[in-house]
Amino acid sequence: MSAHATRPRIYLAGPEVFLPNAREIGAEKRRAAAEAGFEGVFPLDNALDLSGLDKAGQARRISLANEDLMRSCAALVANLTPFRGVSMDAGTAFEVGFMRALGRPVAGYTNARDDYRERSHAFRAGTAHHFDADRPHIEIEDFGLAENLMIEIAIAESDCTVVRSHVAAGTEMTDLTGFRQSLAELAKVLVAP
Amino acid sequence: MSAHATRPRIYLAGPEVFLPNAREIGAEKRRAAAEAGFEGVFPLDNALDLSGLDKAGQARRISLANEDLMRSCAALVANLTPFRGVSMDAGTAFEVGFMRALGRPVAGYTNARDDYRERSHAFRAGTAHHFDADRPHIEIEDFGLAENLMIEIAIAESDCTVVRSHVAAGTEMTDLTGFRQSLAELAKVLVAP
Repeated sequence: MSAHATRPRIYLAGPEVFLPNAREIGAEKRRAAAEAGFEGVFPLDNALDLSGLDKAGQARRISLANEDLMRSCAALVANLTPFRGVSMDAGTAFEVGFMRALGRPVAGYTNARDDYRERSHAFRAGTAHHFDADRPHIEIEDFGLAENLMIEIAIAESDCTVVRSHVAAGTEMTDLTGFRQSLAELAKVLVAP
Repeated sequence: MSAHATRPRIYLAGPEVFLPNAREIGAEKRRAAAEAGFEGVFPLDNALDLSGLDKAGQARRISLANEDLMRSCAALVANLTPFRGVSMDAGTAFEVGFMRALGRPVAGYTNARDDYRERSHAFRAGTAHHFDADRPHIEIEDFGLAENLMIEIAIAESDCTVVRSHVAAGTEMTDLTGFRQSLAELAKVLVAP
């Protein structure tokens, strides 16, 4: 049995799947995962055969394939960088919860430096969106955390930290400094007895 | 064994916990759940003893208590209404994934009528937020869904639908019309053999 064959599979969760160069980013993340001793597993969105399916069928196939992939993985690393709002991508949040319920370690990083609280205030100071239910009288979590406490504590309980990086403008979706730190944290968690 | 004692416990997920009158909303949701044959379980944020804990300790106690509550429930109803951005509350998304991984049915409703795609375009047309990783070249999901496909399909696979309501301005966080429809859907799922 080679070391290669026993590398733990790690689900690489994040909104990078929506980038035009998602495959390249996925390949880069898989390389970084391999360097850390893992087999990185990038969501299948771009590799599934969706031909002949209507939109609802496509969404179903992608979602169920991703669930199967998660079940095949020993742990997850989530990109928590804010995406279309104060918080992380909702699909990634779903995936953090999914793996947490399975009792598998979750790590995470964000390329936004500010706390959730600070971002929420900045959001409110910006243009209001008619569809958004947030209003000034609604409480803003103030725990000094980077994300909703359900996310952040799931990571802490996995003996990982939410890695925060301050990255160059325009590289919020592609800078992998924090990702590599999360991999290093997971390596300690999964290798330790 | 009375009918009362056997009512399935339903976890009531949503950002209402941040409202100043969260307890009242929780009580109202529990009443509606009872009318549908369930015991509604509202997250504990406001009922836990957090004295003597620092912020990190408070966040941990709340999060782990909510996880325990979810494990004690037969199903979940999620408020998917957009909260501080295009998408639903990240903590609620985590909880949908958590219950999905446990194989328990999830239902959901939103008080925003537009698709995820339409809201994303509206978001981009508004003021840009410096912390947000979204950029014009990044793909916007276009499956005709109300939320990220991981969320929406988890609900569809539970034999429920994402109930969309168009509610009066200012009642996005409190209108329970969609919530009651979700309860009715869950009642069929949990009662049917």
